[in-house]
Amino acid sequence: LISERSEQEPVAFADIQHAAEVLDGIAHRTPLITSRQLNAIAGATVYLKCENFQRVGAFKFRGAYHAVSTIHARQASAAIVTLSSGNHAQGIALACRLLDLAAHVVMIKPVNPLKYQAVLDYGAATYEVSDRDKAETVLQALVETHQGLYVHAFNDPLVIAGQGTAMLEFISDVPDLDAVLAPIGGGGLLSGASIVAHGLRPGMQIYACEPAGALDAVYSVRENRIVPMSAPNTIAEGLLTSVGDVTLPILRRHLSDFFVVEEAEIINAMRFAFERLKIVVEPAGAVALAPLLRREARLAGKKVGVIITGGNADLSRFFDR
Amino acid sequence: LISERSEQEPVAFADIQHAAEVLDGIAHRTPLITSRQLNAIAGATVYLKCENFQRVGAFKFRGAYHAVSTIHARQASAAIVTLSSGNHAQGIALACRLLDLAAHVVMIKPVNPLKYQAVLDYGAATYEVSDRDKAETVLQALVETHQGLYVHAFNDPLVIAGQGTAMLEFISDVPDLDAVLAPIGGGGLLSGASIVAHGLRPGMQIYACEPAGALDAVYSVRENRIVPMSAPNTIAEGLLTSVGDVTLPILRRHLSDFFVVEEAEIINAMRFAFERLKIVVEPAGAVALAPLLRREARLAGKKVGVIITGGNADLSRFFDR
Repeated sequence: LISERSEQEPVAFADIQHAAEVLDGIAHRTPLITSRQLNAIAGATVYLKCENFQRVGAFKFRGAYHAVSTIHARQASAAIVTLSSGNHAQGIALACRLLDLAAHVVMIKPVNPLKYQAVLDYGAATYEVSDRDKAETVLQALVETHQGLYVHAFNDPLVIAGQGTAMLEFISDVPDLDAVLAPIGGGGLLSGASIVAHGLRPGMQIYACEPAGALDAVYSVRENRIVPMSAPNTIAEGLLTSVGDVTLPILRRHLSDFFVVEEAEIINAMRFAFERLKIVVEPAGAVALAPLLRREARLAGKKVGVIITGGNADLSRFFDR
Repeated sequence: LISERSEQEPVAFADIQHAAEVLDGIAHRTPLITSRQLNAIAGATVYLKCENFQRVGAFKFRGAYHAVSTIHARQASAAIVTLSSGNHAQGIALACRLLDLAAHVVMIKPVNPLKYQAVLDYGAATYEVSDRDKAETVLQALVETHQGLYVHAFNDPLVIAGQGTAMLEFISDVPDLDAVLAPIGGGGLLSGASIVAHGLRPGMQIYACEPAGALDAVYSVRENRIVPMSAPNTIAEGLLTSVGDVTLPILRRHLSDFFVVEEAEIINAMRFAFERLKIVVEPAGAVALAPLLRREARLAGKKVGVIITGGNADLSRFFDR
């Protein structure tokens, strides 16, 4: 199904257009939000693409469903295996439920309880492990026992093509964006988004936003090697992954630059989203809003798109009394 | 400007259509949200009219702006005086700022800090008082000192006509609603909404939703007199008002029935909105969602509209560390 791919580009623009056909009527076409107040603070005209309103509460459903449905088309009774403690896990679990496939999800503790419960509710089998090494052992055993097919959370062309569909919608709704900001974890979303931008609007700036407490993508792209995360310290638990060998070359080719955001800025952006925009965003989902709230000079006067990636915040602190 | 009014009906359908013209391009046409999960829980097809995305974060902007702009058309330098600790205060403050009128807002403590700050930020003068009697004294003084014109939060035909515009939009977007639910405080929104429903869809059921801890509207409508609130005890601080002599007859004529909701149901509905729908709602704004989450039998199988009235929840508990 992946076609028109060159050696330089493991995902082609046409792959993302095809993914959009697969997702049509299944993923939500998520709404945009604008805010006079945000525009005034940012000194820019800002459009927020609200993937927190996507199924499972995050853009991850797009890539997960695209990958799982492609596998399903080849092998109707496949078992899907994945490693994710977060939104990808939910995306795989829901995709497998919709397509009636078995899902086996390995999660490295600690796990956001909201995300864990959702994965269970979608009917996936879950395996909680304490570290990365144990996860690899369990994953291998699952693949062998169930003839499972592994779907990586971001380092997979099918997943990247699915994530890119968010950007297809964004450009369709706001064709003349000058720049787009998205948070970076493994780089799946930004890979897909930048391939779309390159295909449709080559002059558009693409900025990756990374927490100062989990800086690895900025080094990986600069040094052209996968720099592992060392002692990450951020509440944006959705971004605690290094880039992969599929995403890194795409990011190097297409990213305009990085914005690094501090923890206080992430909290501030979450609070702005909750209190002013009335939308629930998770910490990772707020990361790309933060540069606008500090009136980032490179965005001044521009038409700026921000991908609000997810809304699965743990609200027990607020609700449990 | 209020026309075609009969003795029986202090607000006519045409008044609400006129209010919609006044608000066009100034108030937001708020979006609808739907949720497969909510439909499954409710056993109904539910549409949420998201007035939490309205300017000032609540439907109250509609009535406040309509009233203030009508006054402004008659007297360009009027001073507006009001009594409100909540969203009406914000609505008046923003309307006066947009129309360059002075706003004087009397607030009875305790005041939600988010709402108080917003009123200040919009440039209104504020007067915090400890009880209703002191509020009356301050209001009279303000009216005399500033030749102020008093805009009641709900017991005013102009305000009621403004609130009704939310229902005009709702029926325009979903013409075949079987029933609409909204929370009841003073009854301004439900008065306007039911006049619209009566004008456009006479068979539509209109349900007022009231916290068990602040039951006065249900008694007022039953006994056809304004039954004062006695010892209210609810987190839905936006609903701590009795109905008025303008709203009561309208409510008696048009309301189908009441749904009474418990405090735990209000919290549960807020939590559902935050965690599942990814929208921020204040306690009062969640009250009309609660009957659907308990799978209210009278709504089973129906196409049901819910007005999510506001999103100005105090989130300091979540964000202050």
